[in-house]
Amino acid sequence: MFDFKLHHVDAATGARAGVLSTPHGPLETPAFMPVGTQGTVKGVTIDQLRATGAQMILGNTYHLALRPSADVVESLGGLHAFTGWTGPILTDSGGFQIFSLAANAKITEEKAVFRSHIDGQLFELSPEKAVRIQEQLGSDVAMVLDHVLALPAAAEQVQDAMQRSVRWAARCQAAARRTDQAQFAIIQGGLDERQRIWCAEQLAALDFPGYAIGGLSVGEAPADMYRVLGFTTPAMPREKPRYLMGVGRPIDIVEAIARGVDMFDCVMPTRNGRNALAFTDAGPVRLRNAKHERDDRPLEPDCPCPACRHSLAYLRHLFMAGEMTGPILLSIHNLTFYQRLVAAAQAAIRENKYGSFLAERRARWNTECDKDVVAEE
Amino acid sequence: MFDFKLHHVDAATGARAGVLSTPHGPLETPAFMPVGTQGTVKGVTIDQLRATGAQMILGNTYHLALRPSADVVESLGGLHAFTGWTGPILTDSGGFQIFSLAANAKITEEKAVFRSHIDGQLFELSPEKAVRIQEQLGSDVAMVLDHVLALPAAAEQVQDAMQRSVRWAARCQAAARRTDQAQFAIIQGGLDERQRIWCAEQLAALDFPGYAIGGLSVGEAPADMYRVLGFTTPAMPREKPRYLMGVGRPIDIVEAIARGVDMFDCVMPTRNGRNALAFTDAGPVRLRNAKHERDDRPLEPDCPCPACRHSLAYLRHLFMAGEMTGPILLSIHNLTFYQRLVAAAQAAIRENKYGSFLAERRARWNTECDKDVVAEE
Repeated sequence: MFDFKLHHVDAATGARAGVLSTPHGPLETPAFMPVGTQGTVKGVTIDQLRATGAQMILGNTYHLALRPSADVVESLGGLHAFTGWTGPILTDSGGFQIFSLAANAKITEEKAVFRSHIDGQLFELSPEKAVRIQEQLGSDVAMVLDHVLALPAAAEQVQDAMQRSVRWAARCQAAARRTDQAQFAIIQGGLDERQRIWCAEQLAALDFPGYAIGGLSVGEAPADMYRVLGFTTPAMPREKPRYLMGVGRPIDIVEAIARGVDMFDCVMPTRNGRNALAFTDAGPVRLRNAKHERDDRPLEPDCPCPACRHSLAYLRHLFMAGEMTGPILLSIHNLTFYQRLVAAAQAAIRENKYGSFLAERRARWNTECDKDVVAEE
Repeated sequence: MFDFKLHHVDAATGARAGVLSTPHGPLETPAFMPVGTQGTVKGVTIDQLRATGAQMILGNTYHLALRPSADVVESLGGLHAFTGWTGPILTDSGGFQIFSLAANAKITEEKAVFRSHIDGQLFELSPEKAVRIQEQLGSDVAMVLDHVLALPAAAEQVQDAMQRSVRWAARCQAAARRTDQAQFAIIQGGLDERQRIWCAEQLAALDFPGYAIGGLSVGEAPADMYRVLGFTTPAMPREKPRYLMGVGRPIDIVEAIARGVDMFDCVMPTRNGRNALAFTDAGPVRLRNAKHERDDRPLEPDCPCPACRHSLAYLRHLFMAGEMTGPILLSIHNLTFYQRLVAAAQAAIRENKYGSFLAERRARWNTECDKDVVAEE
């Protein structure tokens, strides 16, 4: 049911184009997965989401397990039937949310114990339970439970969490029962080359159908992230899909693709859309800016999204008036922008032109993106 | 450019089916117009709005004049180009908003002077200015400026405001310049039969292309509203469209159609949708109710709206999780419900079955609707 075909590797950069086949359809890579944390991409209906070009979406195990609960989702036929999304779905394991959202998280070799950020209820997540919940959710791709740390962290802490993540990955693999769900392992190891490579090799030996790079985009500088990718992806199996979790800005995505990454997810398009910041090929646009008051041009004339059938002046008015359609339309535009970006990257790779594609975007975006955009939800 | 054709009158009740032609297309009546106060129906994109079956929408002159201003809308090509709504648009005159929203409103024979509810700025609205603003907005139907009162009010106050409304209507008519915009007069007169009939006759003599009934749905009992309609519509020109402003609950709409009303607008479908209350043929459904937690049925199996492709359990989850898609989907469902209601009323009228159509809905809704729904935005 699962299969990853690498169709082309860009001669100069190593950027890859391929297709991941899943029980709910194909994912062309490089791919961007919109984040549907609580069983919906914020502000966007299923029809609108499909029209952005998205093929696969992400659901958050931590959030769904707390509300409405894995039992409820399972009793309603799983995440596809529950949400109405008929394409492939990836669920994370909850590791990142325990690190970033849960209160009083205590992690032992056996499991993580923490309090819900919603109602303070005690909740336990072991590797086996993370697998069980994701099997109840019925996603196409399930992530192993990993131990996520804030960076910078002491070398011993990074190593301890990384080694635990490897042991937990093996426990997740042993616990998996569904044959219609692929499990991806997660490479940890902070910013340390030796640790990342060791982790990648340990997990490669376990022969997972896909591999993720975790523990990045947690506060480190972009240059550090690119450096880590530069030595991590060469240690990952060539024939398996590579997924960079929680990344990122448009420039991060094109830089990571150049380093051989195939899949991405991030809340940035929707988060920034709700905050009146639009992504465009020319760089970010702040919709609240008074200079747009009478501007009758669209955000991007060649963009097929519903926001770009309106003027900048109208979009600005919606935000100034506090109307929900502002966040809705801009979320859809930004999701469409990300899908158009990865589609353009795919085309550039197939034509062996990824080097110039990357150079153009570096020139356009490198400085502009940094100061405006919000990376976390 | 404007024309109202009465195609059929139900033999038993007097309910009417017709078509209002406008420069931006036809409106089949009885019709319900969704309210796009600030240049957007709250939470609903233009494509989604069209798909509910809506043919004509309403914009609020008061709100648009304050933000983004009539000048801005005009400079962007008018309300159709600004909002992207290509069908007919009706704008109100601001009379009701001065009464309900503005601070320190002072009404003289010349004009209303009030402070903006947004920033406290002083604003003046005379009949001539109400016409001028609506001509800048470029709506298909413009309403005359009227003097709205809270009910109950002393008989002399009601008479004074009603007579001023007639004088203001004549001033609006004299001020109108656009030939592609039809002006509707507004009948006032509180709950008093003599005053309503006198007002209707005075305005009929001025030969407007359409007539509205104003000053209802401002706190009076439903029975009082039906009584007022019962003696007002017979005094209105038979060959002109009749518009009941700001009404209302589904039961109010079917009762008013039975009394010869053709057009309606109300914030109830969107307002209640945002508050997790769905309208259905079986009566209102509160989505937050725990009994829907695992209910895999849709709100209405025969409804074609995007909300009804989901389960009650999923819609409930969206509201419990605070997701915008809950209000969005339920607003769309409720708007679709209202459009299906008026379409069913049109069919019943054409078949001379409006009496039984009304009786069925009275039996189903009369008690249930009252306790749940919210009438004001």
